[in-house]
Amino acid sequence: MTKKEKIAFGRLNQMRNDQIGKNKKIRIGFVGGGPNSFIGYSHRLASRFDNRFEFVAGVFSRDIKKSISFGQSLGLSKDRCYDNFITMAKKESQRGDGIEAVGVMTPSGDHYKIIREFVANKVHIICDKPLTATIKDAVRLEKLIKKSKVIFALTHNYSAYPMLREAKEIVANGSIGKINLINVEYPQGYTVGVKRKDQKNTLKWRLDKRMAGPSMILAEIGTHAYHLMRYVTNLEVKEVAAEVNSISSEVTVDDNAFLIVRMNNNARGSIWVSSAATGGENGLKIRVYGTNGALEWFQDDPNNLKFTELNKPTQIITRASSTVSEFSIRSSRIAAGHPEGFFEAFANIYTEFADSIIDYKKNKKSKLIHPSIQDGVKGIKFIFAAKKSSNLNSKWIKI
Amino acid sequence: MTKKEKIAFGRLNQMRNDQIGKNKKIRIGFVGGGPNSFIGYSHRLASRFDNRFEFVAGVFSRDIKKSISFGQSLGLSKDRCYDNFITMAKKESQRGDGIEAVGVMTPSGDHYKIIREFVANKVHIICDKPLTATIKDAVRLEKLIKKSKVIFALTHNYSAYPMLREAKEIVANGSIGKINLINVEYPQGYTVGVKRKDQKNTLKWRLDKRMAGPSMILAEIGTHAYHLMRYVTNLEVKEVAAEVNSISSEVTVDDNAFLIVRMNNNARGSIWVSSAATGGENGLKIRVYGTNGALEWFQDDPNNLKFTELNKPTQIITRASSTVSEFSIRSSRIAAGHPEGFFEAFANIYTEFADSIIDYKKNKKSKLIHPSIQDGVKGIKFIFAAKKSSNLNSKWIKI
Amino acid sequence: MTKKEKIAFGRLNQMRNDQIGKNKKIRIGFVGGGPNSFIGYSHRLASRFDNRFEFVAGVFSRDIKKSISFGQSLGLSKDRCYDNFITMAKKESQRGDGIEAVGVMTPSGDHYKIIREFVANKVHIICDKPLTATIKDAVRLEKLIKKSKVIFALTHNYSAYPMLREAKEIVANGSIGKINLINVEYPQGYTVGVKRKDQKNTLKWRLDKRMAGPSMILAEIGTHAYHLMRYVTNLEVKEVAAEVNSISSEVTVDDNAFLIVRMNNNARGSIWVSSAATGGENGLKIRVYGTNGALEWFQDDPNNLKFTELNKPTQIITRASSTVSEFSIRSSRIAAGHPEGFFEAFANIYTEFADSIIDYKKNKKSKLIHPSIQDGVKGIKFIFAAKKSSNLNSKWIKI
Amino acid sequence: MTKKEKIAFGRLNQMRNDQIGKNKKIRIGFVGGGPNSFIGYSHRLASRFDNRFEFVAGVFSRDIKKSISFGQSLGLSKDRCYDNFITMAKKESQRGDGIEAVGVMTPSGDHYKIIREFVANKVHIICDKPLTATIKDAVRLEKLIKKSKVIFALTHNYSAYPMLREAKEIVANGSIGKINLINVEYPQGYTVGVKRKDQKNTLKWRLDKRMAGPSMILAEIGTHAYHLMRYVTNLEVKEVAAEVNSISSEVTVDDNAFLIVRMNNNARGSIWVSSAATGGENGLKIRVYGTNGALEWFQDDPNNLKFTELNKPTQIITRASSTVSEFSIRSSRIAAGHPEGFFEAFANIYTEFADSIIDYKKNKKSKLIHPSIQDGVKGIKFIFAAKKSSNLNSKWIKI
Repeated sequence: MTKKEKIAFGRLNQMRNDQIGKNKKIRIGFVGGGPNSFIGYSHRLASRFDNRFEFVAGVFSRDIKKSISFGQSLGLSKDRCYDNFITMAKKESQRGDGIEAVGVMTPSGDHYKIIREFVANKVHIICDKPLTATIKDAVRLEKLIKKSKVIFALTHNYSAYPMLREAKEIVANGSIGKINLINVEYPQGYTVGVKRKDQKNTLKWRLDKRMAGPSMILAEIGTHAYHLMRYVTNLEVKEVAAEVNSISSEVTVDDNAFLIVRMNNNARGSIWVSSAATGGENGLKIRVYGTNGALEWFQDDPNNLKFTELNKPTQIITRASSTVSEFSIRSSRIAAGHPEGFFEAFANIYTEFADSIIDYKKNKKSKLIHPSIQDGVKGIKFIFAAKKSSNLNSKWIKI
Repeated sequence: MTKKEKIAFGRLNQMRNDQIGKNKKIRIGFVGGGPNSFIGYSHRLASRFDNRFEFVAGVFSRDIKKSISFGQSLGLSKDRCYDNFITMAKKESQRGDGIEAVGVMTPSGDHYKIIREFVANKVHIICDKPLTATIKDAVRLEKLIKKSKVIFALTHNYSAYPMLREAKEIVANGSIGKINLINVEYPQGYTVGVKRKDQKNTLKWRLDKRMAGPSMILAEIGTHAYHLMRYVTNLEVKEVAAEVNSISSEVTVDDNAFLIVRMNNNARGSIWVSSAATGGENGLKIRVYGTNGALEWFQDDPNNLKFTELNKPTQIITRASSTVSEFSIRSSRIAAGHPEGFFEAFANIYTEFADSIIDYKKNKKSKLIHPSIQDGVKGIKFIFAAKKSSNLNSKWIKI
Repeated sequence: MTKKEKIAFGRLNQMRNDQIGKNKKIRIGFVGGGPNSFIGYSHRLASRFDNRFEFVAGVFSRDIKKSISFGQSLGLSKDRCYDNFITMAKKESQRGDGIEAVGVMTPSGDHYKIIREFVANKVHIICDKPLTATIKDAVRLEKLIKKSKVIFALTHNYSAYPMLREAKEIVANGSIGKINLINVEYPQGYTVGVKRKDQKNTLKWRLDKRMAGPSMILAEIGTHAYHLMRYVTNLEVKEVAAEVNSISSEVTVDDNAFLIVRMNNNARGSIWVSSAATGGENGLKIRVYGTNGALEWFQDDPNNLKFTELNKPTQIITRASSTVSEFSIRSSRIAAGHPEGFFEAFANIYTEFADSIIDYKKNKKSKLIHPSIQDGVKGIKFIFAAKKSSNLNSKWIKI
Repeated sequence: MTKKEKIAFGRLNQMRNDQIGKNKKIRIGFVGGGPNSFIGYSHRLASRFDNRFEFVAGVFSRDIKKSISFGQSLGLSKDRCYDNFITMAKKESQRGDGIEAVGVMTPSGDHYKIIREFVANKVHIICDKPLTATIKDAVRLEKLIKKSKVIFALTHNYSAYPMLREAKEIVANGSIGKINLINVEYPQGYTVGVKRKDQKNTLKWRLDKRMAGPSMILAEIGTHAYHLMRYVTNLEVKEVAAEVNSISSEVTVDDNAFLIVRMNNNARGSIWVSSAATGGENGLKIRVYGTNGALEWFQDDPNNLKFTELNKPTQIITRASSTVSEFSIRSSRIAAGHPEGFFEAFANIYTEFADSIIDYKKNKKSKLIHPSIQDGVKGIKFIFAAKKSSNLNSKWIKI
């Protein structure tokens, strides 16, 4: 092991192991995420991953019996399993050992009213995306959060992969020069072959525009693509031209979007998000091209980053290897070569949320490394702009 | 070796070896393709590949000394090296052993007037793309070819890769169902970092709109992408919305295009072609998604085709393996596992051109397996439609 | 979502989420794994992953202050941080809430004496590999475990990847026919460039044969390779011919081994394990060839399994997709397409260990899905046989 | 295009285009390679590829009618189609325009007696591998060639891939330091599932030890693997321990070999060659590990070379890109990004053979870039040593 490797290895160990040191675990509850919810499971595992949270309460069903049954199976005590968020917010606020943070993974249309209850009690919020189902809700939620000063994190989990973050760092340190082109694609296939009679089973509340907003596919994964584009490049999308369609014949909501974007630095980009790409599982990929180099990251191969400097061979930079940045290695848990995946990235958001809360408790201004309320609001505005463009026959719309 | 393999191997051997049988080699000349021309070299090698043509004449320079010097170095006799196509057409037509076919790889703006001379003498034409620099030239060239009935082949060479053709066959036999989505990308990087003073060196006649038409990138590779999209799917692009830009700061021509398309069966698609994608070499990829399956072919890995049936594992179909179609295997020369590449595909077009000429000589209607004059005309209309769309702020334009 | 997908998705959710139901969490302690130990961290995270263990005690240093400091930082109470395993075994056995299980990740040479103490108190054992540093220790440990009837699990974590297990299932159901050839490779590079003065830093106790056994590389990763070979094929290695060397010039222990093996069904195989393969990170790969098909799994791409039936295209089977086996999907936590990695596999061993303990408590015979004491003993015999072969100039040695 | 790229592109064009300049084409004939012979086709195409040979004569069958029929279909004149090599050698030597070179692709057992006839007439020889079926033949062929001073080339075609040659250059310039480990594998699957009654169809003369030597798989691809190992590293194999088997149950010849080797610089290596690796197509891969770096080349992806410097990210060096060596680019024909394949590599051997002949004609000592008679002799000694080792239960045997 060379000195460089030792440093890398040391950095790795210091950062992201499970030592909480003198900090206590943060008491957290969840609203949403019942027995068959993948996203509920993901949030709970992410909170447990780095030993930073103690899971103590939750609403898992509107039927109190079901909520208790599920909560107890997760190890909660009966009296902290609730059947609605209002009761939960109230009861928890009355306890000495009540929750300090809450994870919200209900349909987006309910986010505002749920979060409002908890913020009133100074509970910190970690919320699934998209932020809300309307711009109005997004904006008033932003005001609420700003005013209350609680910590707010949005789980744009893909932005927390170590090598995606390495891409962000490489852009930030100028190694690829001025960005000229960006391409993000996310071709999934889950609506292909869905029959009309089954779509409720597959898409659930996503069929209800009051809950999911105006465009299923833009809400589900369009916001992820849009966020990654902004996150890696540190640029903003100025305007968008979109063709958003319901492609699968028996599906009634948008399941494909082709977008062209103009960035605030005059770069151009394209986004493709779909659930109509037959056979597609995840396939999230981002490519960024600058005057001096290019980057490519692909979620199917998340531990590698392709970095090409102008007129040089492409380099495959591996996670936690000796040349990666401090930020990337802090987002990583295991030495180079062993694969990390989805849950580690998700856990990064939770652990950074914990760090923000600890800063809050110490009256320190947090760096808010995780996605913020502003990111959430922009995501909603993006959905509405892209949908509007599509409705206007792909007219360019400012975000 | 199983019976199936033996058949496959037999098919392979019968088809594309170098046996010309009782047919004589076809005498061919070339217009264009001087000492440093990659495309000239490619055409000559492609014509030689399958032993079907005898290369006997050419124009390689407007300076007769240079043309002779280069022609002789290629093995031509001095008197069949010309300094202009008019002399060549005339002199060759007066010989008993004059050329029967001509390959044209000059700037597109010159195609019409060159081809006209040779067609007048019933010389068959194989021409590089794009067909012309204007719609007017394309249309009158089409009329000319139709009227004269000579064979015309356009070298959309990518369409002749065996596994791209396997994709076409799989679509044609209905295995992926009705096509819903298509994505073609071709991100090259050759204009990145080009200085204003050097762009003439890099782009040559492509800077001259009279020669190259209204959009460099659309002409250079946009037409390839558009042709592949049509070729594999057997669908037509009905309309296009485009954002075409000159991205590289010191380059004066279009070097990036993002396109969204609507197909005549109501499928949607997107095309991205670029020479501004830093570090990009070729990267030509096509993906097609239908109601029952999907296909993906990538020129960087040309001997494999990804085929995914709905709810089944992706299959990697390899070139010349025992399950591939007759058409694919006829386009192939070596047993599965050994890599074929660019030149074999290019040679397929030449050999199919030879087959068409032999049919012509026998008064048989040729199947014209290679790209045709109609493909060429459509390509030009596509360029103009896409450019117009971009000029009108990405308005949808019918092709 | 088709019916098949729904079933797959349902299976996924039922199996490996964090519901412990009516079972209580199992109280666990750890011996070994101090502040800079990657393996200690891995064990702790794996135990926490599925919500099945409560981490309550440990020995992290022989210096009680250090042990307490580290234990507390992990959330332990002071009185359950010990400075040696004898005290820990004794004190924990005297508590009503003492540990029910212990994870052992000390040098192999200490395993026997540590485990003996805990087994005496009917504490269940999960132990890192290789089992011991001598055959003698391995054999008497096996006797001890058998006699005591406590649950014993060995953390051959690679065998718990879902798609490696899918390979095992495909072999078991006969889909590849009789196995003829097996190849396992694990080319790492961590001893390359290590200076004599630094090797103690890199290799630590692995330099001490009393702790690590007769061959560093065979103990470190040779046993993993050997176990995977047996695990996937359900065959045994009958004899081995080996060339084991210390390749890196300043390293004093074995860092490369090329092995040829003969299996009990007469198949042949080869194993290559190395830490002298410059630039190698992990690169663990297994390939199995039978009369009707073949399988390939690669830890760098752990969510995919290549499956080739004779004369058919290779299929890429993806983790948790609708066609995978019950066993594979039970070993998986997230829907197809999102990457899982190293820690999920490690956690599978822990969760199966928990399942075995619950069976034990219920007086049910456990299926012992995780690697067992017998696997551990075989691994040690393999190390000694391979080393002996190498010492005898690659003579074939029976295991 | 940068200056560096221009140079690269210029180099490319100068080198391997089809300009023969003032040199005349070399008249060549072939012995072997009838209607269904893949190797015959490959030799003919390779000779035609770079415009350097004129194919004028051949023996394609012992039946003169068949030989004429096939020869004429290839464009030969009737009187230069022969039914045996003795007549061909004699008649051609009597013509003013007789062959100057001959390609030999008969069974190895016939090589010596055929070549002897042509060498007697000072005809240059290009011969398929393995050189002979016995060491005796190999040694006397070497003497013959040395004495006669004709040019002799052996078609170890894999050694002529541009990026394999780039690997050789990188080793030669010291960039990976002292070589410590080498691994070559070539797992094919063509004997799997072959029935006893069909093996003659599949393996033909390879079943006859007098023609094919003592070990089918070692002769067929073992010699390629061995040659590549020597070629890339510039090292020699000192001794070998081998396990060579007939694995497929109905096949009577060797179809799998696992080898361990010790190199003359004390490096260690392993070779695996097989036709029993179910589903394997070609899969030829070489990996070389040195004190400062490592290289990996894979024939399935022949245009890329992986180069890893110690503690740096792996680089993917692409064929003909601006950083590759003169030797690699001279072995290449098209700009980076477009795939080259098997035939280009094969053609390199032919073109280098032509270059050697031209040097010979000019009384210049040729550099003999292509594999030589010595390479051929070593290959045969390797086969016999490996087979002997296997017969002696994998005892180490010196080559």
